[in-house]
Amino acid sequence: MQTANARVNHFSIRRLLLGQPLQTKELPHQAVNRPIGLAVFASDAISSTAYATEEILIILSMAGVSAAVLSLSVPIAIAIAVLLAIVTISYRQTIYTYPNGGGAYIVARDNFGEVAAQIAGAALLTDYILTVAVSISSGVAQITSGFPALLPYRVELAVGFIIMMMVINLRGVKESGRIFAVPTYFFLAMMFLTLGIGFIRVLTGTLPTVTGVEVIKHDVLQPVTLFLILRAFSSGSAALTGIEAISNGITAFKEPRSHNAAVTLLWMSGILITLFLGITVMAQQIHAMPSHTETVISQIARTVHGADSILYLLTLAGTSLILLMAANTSFADFPRLAALAASDGFLPRQLTYRGGRLVFSWGIVILALLASMLVILMQANTTALIPLYAIGVFLSFTISQSGMVKHLWKMGHLKPGEKVQGLETILEYDPHWAKKMVISAIGAVATFIVMMIFAVTKFTSGAWFVIVLIPSLVLVFFRIHRHYQRVARALSMEGVRPDLRERPVQTIVLIDDVHNETTRLVNFAKSLGHPWTALHVSVNPEKTRIVRKKWAERIGEGELVVLDSPYRLLSDPIAQYVQQVREKDPEGFIHVVMGHLAMPNFWEQVLHQNSALIFNLTLSQMENVAVTIIPFQIRT
Amino acid sequence: MQTANARVNHFSIRRLLLGQPLQTKELPHQAVNRPIGLAVFASDAISSTAYATEEILIILSMAGVSAAVLSLSVPIAIAIAVLLAIVTISYRQTIYTYPNGGGAYIVARDNFGEVAAQIAGAALLTDYILTVAVSISSGVAQITSGFPALLPYRVELAVGFIIMMMVINLRGVKESGRIFAVPTYFFLAMMFLTLGIGFIRVLTGTLPTVTGVEVIKHDVLQPVTLFLILRAFSSGSAALTGIEAISNGITAFKEPRSHNAAVTLLWMSGILITLFLGITVMAQQIHAMPSHTETVISQIARTVHGADSILYLLTLAGTSLILLMAANTSFADFPRLAALAASDGFLPRQLTYRGGRLVFSWGIVILALLASMLVILMQANTTALIPLYAIGVFLSFTISQSGMVKHLWKMGHLKPGEKVQGLETILEYDPHWAKKMVISAIGAVATFIVMMIFAVTKFTSGAWFVIVLIPSLVLVFFRIHRHYQRVARALSMEGVRPDLRERPVQTIVLIDDVHNETTRLVNFAKSLGHPWTALHVSVNPEKTRIVRKKWAERIGEGELVVLDSPYRLLSDPIAQYVQQVREKDPEGFIHVVMGHLAMPNFWEQVLHQNSALIFNLTLSQMENVAVTIIPFQIRT
Repeated sequence: MQTANARVNHFSIRRLLLGQPLQTKELPHQAVNRPIGLAVFASDAISSTAYATEEILIILSMAGVSAAVLSLSVPIAIAIAVLLAIVTISYRQTIYTYPNGGGAYIVARDNFGEVAAQIAGAALLTDYILTVAVSISSGVAQITSGFPALLPYRVELAVGFIIMMMVINLRGVKESGRIFAVPTYFFLAMMFLTLGIGFIRVLTGTLPTVTGVEVIKHDVLQPVTLFLILRAFSSGSAALTGIEAISNGITAFKEPRSHNAAVTLLWMSGILITLFLGITVMAQQIHAMPSHTETVISQIARTVHGADSILYLLTLAGTSLILLMAANTSFADFPRLAALAASDGFLPRQLTYRGGRLVFSWGIVILALLASMLVILMQANTTALIPLYAIGVFLSFTISQSGMVKHLWKMGHLKPGEKVQGLETILEYDPHWAKKMVISAIGAVATFIVMMIFAVTKFTSGAWFVIVLIPSLVLVFFRIHRHYQRVARALSMEGVRPDLRERPVQTIVLIDDVHNETTRLVNFAKSLGHPWTALHVSVNPEKTRIVRKKWAERIGEGELVVLDSPYRLLSDPIAQYVQQVREKDPEGFIHVVMGHLAMPNFWEQVLHQNSALIFNLTLSQMENVAVTIIPFQIRT
Repeated sequence: MQTANARVNHFSIRRLLLGQPLQTKELPHQAVNRPIGLAVFASDAISSTAYATEEILIILSMAGVSAAVLSLSVPIAIAIAVLLAIVTISYRQTIYTYPNGGGAYIVARDNFGEVAAQIAGAALLTDYILTVAVSISSGVAQITSGFPALLPYRVELAVGFIIMMMVINLRGVKESGRIFAVPTYFFLAMMFLTLGIGFIRVLTGTLPTVTGVEVIKHDVLQPVTLFLILRAFSSGSAALTGIEAISNGITAFKEPRSHNAAVTLLWMSGILITLFLGITVMAQQIHAMPSHTETVISQIARTVHGADSILYLLTLAGTSLILLMAANTSFADFPRLAALAASDGFLPRQLTYRGGRLVFSWGIVILALLASMLVILMQANTTALIPLYAIGVFLSFTISQSGMVKHLWKMGHLKPGEKVQGLETILEYDPHWAKKMVISAIGAVATFIVMMIFAVTKFTSGAWFVIVLIPSLVLVFFRIHRHYQRVARALSMEGVRPDLRERPVQTIVLIDDVHNETTRLVNFAKSLGHPWTALHVSVNPEKTRIVRKKWAERIGEGELVVLDSPYRLLSDPIAQYVQQVREKDPEGFIHVVMGHLAMPNFWEQVLHQNSALIFNLTLSQMENVAVTIIPFQIRT
């Protein structure tokens, strides 16, 4: 327990930002009730109402901004709402079937094996990055709608928020539930208030249409084709992202877990559908216009409350806040999924390490980096990011629901009362399996169709990138997996009888010059008690002469071997010499001892050759060669 | 000699670019005659005529581009020519006094000691970087004058040339003399041809004035003040840069060295003065205009030969080539001076290492990096770079000539016939010492005045940066020097009786898991024959339980110590344990043995924790702690 205290006084700036390190036993195991669960898991899904309607309008505006064209948004929104209802019912089944967490990765692995799981994993990881980029970009767009002076700094603002979120998550969000509840419910209150007042004003005939919007301009107008409508539909279907969050996080709910999670899912979907349709209809009522400078939410709130009303700014604030919260959920999901894939050996194992604050630090930092790159590349433009987004989500929806179809089929083919221990869950006969399977199948087919519509209609505007990226990622994941398997085989003691017999050790001491450090090297070599020789690589004949002389005068024992190096190389002659010695006794150990000047700080270390590291690298490819570094401390 | 052959088959891309490595004995020792010497050492100085006149005109244009204002360039050029003559005569004396090389660094060190030498060194190193940036930028400007379509790519072109030059110099320029001779004499031929034809056309009244130049525009015109004229003068004095090259390189000349070098210096100055005045007068004749898109050389050549003439393009080609050659001289000078300062312990010692091709590779790479940064920052704009340039050169001129004053004073105070061995040269009485001292003093005062004019008139446009930079560099040089001195003292065996008695060794084997690598670790520890314990840091209690079990089953001997690490740290608990063991016997060695999975390539290595390096770092601050890494090779 001494170690616990030892750490407290180091790294003060880091400590200031990230807080005291936490002990492993402090890993939180809190359970949330339904209202808190809704706030924690629904912010991602609900926040997408902040941009879904707008993205539909932006696509429709390619055929002009007449009321006739823009009013197509309402039927499109209804179609999306139906899709949302289907997916909700399907996911409700998943929650009951996988009470220990039913994310797409786990359902895919359980029913289809590793390939499907890695495809789902690649799709989800890609989408978590995009969730951060899209939500932050849209959140900044809400802010710049209210404060147009900030428009030129939107990229800086967005990256700033990402960095802030990274630091918060590296600290670890212990009381995450409570923190989430405030903005989620604040947003809901403001939106329902705005829509409520709005509809009352519609009924009383006092709601004006919006004015003063800088409308998007297209050089050439397209006709209203089915393709355009499908494209608008696929843009709007970004509203479905985040809906899987509850099924991933079932274990966080209070008992009865599945029941509480399922009820929360229904609440969430109800709110999501109501808000999405409400916003779309209200946008239609005020003749909201697609714009790159003012969001549709801002237009609605401004028209309903008036530009000077505090309620207008509060609505924008609530919208920005929930969008930031939505980005924050990815900061929880991405590192967790990455750690899961890494513990299965498909991503670098470092992703499974918990940092000082018990969070998966590597995953958090990587997510922040990639999302920032995307934001900078796309200039924090939500519309430019949307074609990349959602395709991964719909792919994972399809895989997850297909997995459920297979799972329910297996359950239907058990004998009544029979129980089978599966990999993730206990399978037992379910009399309603056929009905449930049909529901999941409908969900799978629907999300598959939407994914295909997405891929086709958005292919040229960016979806191609994700379509190339996901299989490439899967390929990389499997290459990593094969590597770890190979290493595990190489290290396996299966059928190996450990040979622990003592072997001869030959010590070789590398000598650059003869000084106090050399004394310590020779002292150590002698103390080891094995046969030893000193080795000097001669790059400069004059220096070698002096080294020989000093060796004779000051050390005066042991053999000093000098290797000529006409090409001024150091590693290669040493490696060759070691190889020669090794050949004489391949079973024995060669023990290469070298010095290293240890400086008190980095800058002074850089002023030295630090060749020990390089020799280490060269010699590490030879079997039974041990490399010892004797540091010699230079104090200031 | 085996090592010589061993190296031939590695690193093929590098080999392709840089050629076969060279043996140390292949270090070239060729001597050049006067014409080749002129080509090698004069390209820097002579090439500055390509932009000096232009820079005078650009400053003058701030007061308008009337013929009256621009004709001020002629008296300014004459003043610069006079200055050049003074400096030439002064440097001629240096050549005879320091026949083994009389660069400012050496003259300063010899007469004023280390501080002056380091000031001169900082000034020269700064200016070598600027020579590359200015010459390449001006060379690219000549090219884009002929091919305006390339104008948008001038930064890319300039950086491309710098990289090319870096590669050429990393290969090493063995036949440098011959390579230099072609462009230098080609440039001289083209320029004298152009000026000759030009003056004949002036005399015959057939030379038109230049047309179609995109003239520089200034929003507000200044009056013609003394300040403006001095500013134009200081811009033009960039013509003097490079004049010291011959005195640096005396040893490269054939015997009688000093005489040949001195004659070459006079040739060079004569050519330089003739060309500079010729170009300035000719610019005046054709009414050449300062422009950001066409150089003055291009305007002259275009007017004299006509835009369609092949002679026009050949003149531009010659000018670009000699400017690239001028940049190339810095690639020889910078690494050499850096190596000299490094061998005196004022720069990182790595700068003294000769790479595979016997060149100072680090210096070449650093120069290329810094010059590229400057070019990118200043958008390859010669005029923007000029205020940073030349101030360092004039500072080193002043120091060098002041050093000569002191040197000649010492020589004058010896008895006739007396000889004293100085640090760099043999001092003897010189009857003409007083006259020579006055000449050097005039040179020193003149260059000091120009430096001050430069610093004052260009302060706000960039000179402030160099004025801050040079003292900062000197400070850093001395901090480095103190560091090396401290290390040397710490390593010195002066008055130390080496204690080579054998001491007890305690072996500690770090164990992460129990597998084939562990067998090798234990095998080695046992073979060492000293008391040993195995040490496992417990981050995960479940894993620790398995490790204990496997240890008992598979190793079954030795003590396994388990350290609890509630904060999941590895280095700290190990360091604390080692410290505890050390306290029991501070005189003995602690021998920490750890494993390292050696992968066949970088990408696979990255997938592993590589904690050995980190442990090494932590433990390197403890005295008498040896760290051994036993690599375990994973083969593909």
